[in-house]
Amino acid sequence: MREAMVRAEVGDDVYGDDPTVKELEELAARVVGKEAALFVPSGTFGNQLALFTHCLRGSEVILGDDCHIVQHEVGAASVIAGVQLRTLPGHKGEFSLSEIENKIRKEEDIHYPATGLIEIENAHSGGRVISLNWMRDVYGIGEKYRIPVHLDGARLFNAAAYLHVDVKEITRFCDSVMFCLSKGLCAPVGSLLAGRQDFIDRARKKRKLMGGGLRQAGFLAAAGILALEKMPHRLKEDHENALFLGEQLARIPGIHVKSEDIQINMVFFSIRDSGRDDLALVAQLKERGIKASSAEGGLMRFVTHYGVTKDDIRYVVDTMRHLLAGS
Amino acid sequence: MREAMVRAEVGDDVYGDDPTVKELEELAARVVGKEAALFVPSGTFGNQLALFTHCLRGSEVILGDDCHIVQHEVGAASVIAGVQLRTLPGHKGEFSLSEIENKIRKEEDIHYPATGLIEIENAHSGGRVISLNWMRDVYGIGEKYRIPVHLDGARLFNAAAYLHVDVKEITRFCDSVMFCLSKGLCAPVGSLLAGRQDFIDRARKKRKLMGGGLRQAGFLAAAGILALEKMPHRLKEDHENALFLGEQLARIPGIHVKSEDIQINMVFFSIRDSGRDDLALVAQLKERGIKASSAEGGLMRFVTHYGVTKDDIRYVVDTMRHLLAGS
Amino acid sequence: MREAMVRAEVGDDVYGDDPTVKELEELAARVVGKEAALFVPSGTFGNQLALFTHCLRGSEVILGDDCHIVQHEVGAASVIAGVQLRTLPGHKGEFSLSEIENKIRKEEDIHYPATGLIEIENAHSGGRVISLNWMRDVYGIGEKYRIPVHLDGARLFNAAAYLHVDVKEITRFCDSVMFCLSKGLCAPVGSLLAGRQDFIDRARKKRKLMGGGLRQAGFLAAAGILALEKMPHRLKEDHENALFLGEQLARIPGIHVKSEDIQINMVFFSIRDSGRDDLALVAQLKERGIKASSAEGGLMRFVTHYGVTKDDIRYVVDTMRHLLAGS
Amino acid sequence: MREAMVRAEVGDDVYGDDPTVKELEELAARVVGKEAALFVPSGTFGNQLALFTHCLRGSEVILGDDCHIVQHEVGAASVIAGVQLRTLPGHKGEFSLSEIENKIRKEEDIHYPATGLIEIENAHSGGRVISLNWMRDVYGIGEKYRIPVHLDGARLFNAAAYLHVDVKEITRFCDSVMFCLSKGLCAPVGSLLAGRQDFIDRARKKRKLMGGGLRQAGFLAAAGILALEKMPHRLKEDHENALFLGEQLARIPGIHVKSEDIQINMVFFSIRDSGRDDLALVAQLKERGIKASSAEGGLMRFVTHYGVTKDDIRYVVDTMRHLLAGS
Repeated sequence: MREAMVRAEVGDDVYGDDPTVKELEELAARVVGKEAALFVPSGTFGNQLALFTHCLRGSEVILGDDCHIVQHEVGAASVIAGVQLRTLPGHKGEFSLSEIENKIRKEEDIHYPATGLIEIENAHSGGRVISLNWMRDVYGIGEKYRIPVHLDGARLFNAAAYLHVDVKEITRFCDSVMFCLSKGLCAPVGSLLAGRQDFIDRARKKRKLMGGGLRQAGFLAAAGILALEKMPHRLKEDHENALFLGEQLARIPGIHVKSEDIQINMVFFSIRDSGRDDLALVAQLKERGIKASSAEGGLMRFVTHYGVTKDDIRYVVDTMRHLLAGS
Repeated sequence: MREAMVRAEVGDDVYGDDPTVKELEELAARVVGKEAALFVPSGTFGNQLALFTHCLRGSEVILGDDCHIVQHEVGAASVIAGVQLRTLPGHKGEFSLSEIENKIRKEEDIHYPATGLIEIENAHSGGRVISLNWMRDVYGIGEKYRIPVHLDGARLFNAAAYLHVDVKEITRFCDSVMFCLSKGLCAPVGSLLAGRQDFIDRARKKRKLMGGGLRQAGFLAAAGILALEKMPHRLKEDHENALFLGEQLARIPGIHVKSEDIQINMVFFSIRDSGRDDLALVAQLKERGIKASSAEGGLMRFVTHYGVTKDDIRYVVDTMRHLLAGS
Repeated sequence: MREAMVRAEVGDDVYGDDPTVKELEELAARVVGKEAALFVPSGTFGNQLALFTHCLRGSEVILGDDCHIVQHEVGAASVIAGVQLRTLPGHKGEFSLSEIENKIRKEEDIHYPATGLIEIENAHSGGRVISLNWMRDVYGIGEKYRIPVHLDGARLFNAAAYLHVDVKEITRFCDSVMFCLSKGLCAPVGSLLAGRQDFIDRARKKRKLMGGGLRQAGFLAAAGILALEKMPHRLKEDHENALFLGEQLARIPGIHVKSEDIQINMVFFSIRDSGRDDLALVAQLKERGIKASSAEGGLMRFVTHYGVTKDDIRYVVDTMRHLLAGS
Repeated sequence: MREAMVRAEVGDDVYGDDPTVKELEELAARVVGKEAALFVPSGTFGNQLALFTHCLRGSEVILGDDCHIVQHEVGAASVIAGVQLRTLPGHKGEFSLSEIENKIRKEEDIHYPATGLIEIENAHSGGRVISLNWMRDVYGIGEKYRIPVHLDGARLFNAAAYLHVDVKEITRFCDSVMFCLSKGLCAPVGSLLAGRQDFIDRARKKRKLMGGGLRQAGFLAAAGILALEKMPHRLKEDHENALFLGEQLARIPGIHVKSEDIQINMVFFSIRDSGRDDLALVAQLKERGIKASSAEGGLMRFVTHYGVTKDDIRYVVDTMRHLLAGS
């Protein structure tokens, strides 16, 4: 991938003449079955740009309260798009279909904002893949009331790998989708926003407003093309490794693994019963060359990815066993 | 009240020299037990000004999804204050205490907005009065995490009348409160926002920004003073009338009255079983001198107030019986 | 006027059924020659609502840097409408026509926001009336590039009185106009925003969002109707009084009167040469029953209005002479 | 530079553990003499992040009307930071010192927003370098009224090369500075925002909100480090080439070169007298391997940079002569 970067043909993408970025955008649109796609600096950027482009300021977005946009994007939806969130209680990424329909502003009323968007996430950042049936139903509601559906697909290819379907089987149930080239696909930087041509045209200008018009982005795009071509079909390996890691960790006294949530490449677990402090553990792991996130809502997280082998996992498990025993 | 208006001594309140407005603001602050109060053009204005003054843009507000700010203020929270709403499922105005605590951003994290406010409503616009115990618990959570609590008290005096307590027994469980001089208190125009002195000082400037700095507001304030002095103790009469109206309507075939929700001066009912169209019924009532709101979520609403007598109610009931029978 | 208020027939204007407000809005639309008008709580509210309704967020407004929206509306344009101001050096309310044309974004470019509005003010809040010729030229530029022109006519009727024309001769050179019922027209509270029907329809909903949907606004509207019917033709008296006041003040040593700027009912003057402090003088005047504004940009201001007589002016002049001599 | 990219040691910069980004940020801070620096995706991103971090929403920014933030950032200042621009007539990047001081809101007044920032640009995007004396005076005004000064230094190193000073001699007259690694410094993507440590800490979180938290940004940072170490001292070559290009173009009939504005690496010229259409010319140049911008305000632009040799310039000049003659 580094070699692809170094050999990339580049131009100035602000002026739309970086051939490698163009190639990546066309490839991405084809892969997710949309008319057009746009390279953006990050997943948060792509999601926020989608809100900003779909919604008039002051309109409402219906989404689960455990999704990334609500939880981990610094409140950006109220700053950049200026939209009002209607959060519904999320259950591992899904939320009540009847509640979605309830929240939609069906008639024009002087007291009502318009409903501008429904937003869903697959794979969900809590590690679960949501079902195609549920997505179909959400999309159906959107069609019924002419409300677009945006898919936060930061881990879209992981969801497809888990479901054993082409990504287009997932993205057919949304009007726009953002997916990341980093994370499981291993590119260093960048995400894509895809949708209808007119949507992407408007998003392109708003990307400039948000400061995401990059210059010689072709270097990043070259890595992105490789990521998109070579990486998806090996994600199942990451998923198997995550399952293996989860099984092994679950055997260590004091660790409680959320085994039922290991569907992609993330293992969530709690060390509460061990009486250990998560921050101290993270630090000790770091000393031993292992990166883990500190606990959020009581759960720590390991992520498997390209380059992480079965042996690496055994090393992680042994280290964890040793550290927790030694406490 | 019209006489009070006509005799009012006025000045220019933008320059802070309207004596009647000052008198009203001081009276209002005393009545709700806060350091200071500010006259504002409407309840929506007062609520949005509270959000705008309490919260930095981009921070989060925790509130019930059935409250007025979410349902009936045109998405203003995302435009004026620019805050991110975290809505919780509301049950007649109350919502889960543990969920409030869950949603609060407890630690600083680069992915997190700050939690800026908890917002509650009493009496709730769905007609129910929320309990002092629940309010005390919400306020306790706010204190624990140093997050202010704003009370939408558009119908604050109705809540106090229902609970048989002084309004200060309610407002002690909030940092700021908005209440309306119109509605049950019968003044033509205006609401008050009350809180700490520094909060009101900042709100005064933001009121100007929002275009709510009125000139000779003393005319309105004169009516407001009278409303505040004379009207609260007669609200129980409106409540009794609402109960009476609810009982009588419930006897008409085809009408289903939400009897358990008649706690203040509002009667919600459905005519679904009658097979009648609510818009047609509203029109027929209007011809007969009776104002009703068209259905929202399947419910129509009658409101009792000053000047509505038992006889008026009998007339309404007879008219309804006649109209529904005649269909 | 107080009597008109007390006898007003009122309803709930949020639901559009206050007959007196309707009457006022229809009268106002007729008077300024526009399709429709909307009652708003203040001049700032009306101006900001105009920006919010004309402009998409992020678009540009071209206006003079000495206008009220820039100088005295607390930066609201960046908060409510969310627009980018392109200020031009204003010369007593007028600014360069060629510069207006220069600033307009003529082509679509990924780096450019759209130009959303040109905003002018007549009479200007610095006391001058701008010429119909200049207004015609500005409006012509707007038409050429299909950019609407909003007129801040807080003192519109003073401008018409000075120019000896019907107000429609002024308002024909704008797409929307805000004018105040308070100030010279003497109503206690309220302004009107007028324009095309579809513009006013959209503004009505945004007025609700901004918290300016008033309830029984008919009391205020009754005063407004009277103001609109009776007050305009007596404004020339205020103007004569202002001229007289200016002449007399100019004879007092230490006072420099901006005589060339006395075109309506405002007299601007400096007491710098007297060596006196303006705040002290304002306080001394207040003790003697005279209201004056403290200096802004070195200039103090007296305003003449209904109820201010020649004798009152003589008293003001005598008091000023006495106070400045006594220093 | 491509090699540096391919060898870069990377981490996840969102979690602050990309060593190459850290190295770049520390180097950048040292070079411009500020406490800290932050890597951002583009110059527009860095400027807008500076406004967003310096200014409370609704406050005012004083700046020249010909600067990049006003002209070429899509109105972002009204969307992201939500500030009110006070534009002053710019003369090749400088604007009146007395007007700056005039526009500052000196006292607290209920009608006034706060002045939040003064913004300047050096080298100016019109090609001129502004003087250190003028910068010192602007900074002095900022200090007097405690208003920070932000420098848009997209072409900071070109300004330093022209002035024959260390960049710190320029950046000492600002509180924060944004400069680009792309443009003259030749890195593919990225800019830096530098300032006090607390400013950068706040900016880091707001960068995440704006979607500018990149993952393995180390690849870009590696190129940036090289750009910062190796490129500044060769910029004088670009400047000499621009002067040479300007001289040669000026000899072609029908071309008017703005010779007095060639101070850095940009040559602005008009082909109006040739009767030719700029878009057609740009297309013909492109066919011959030469990139030029189409006219903006009647001016076309050539930019010299690393890799552009004297011979290349001769080819450009010959091609231009040929094309204009052939018309």
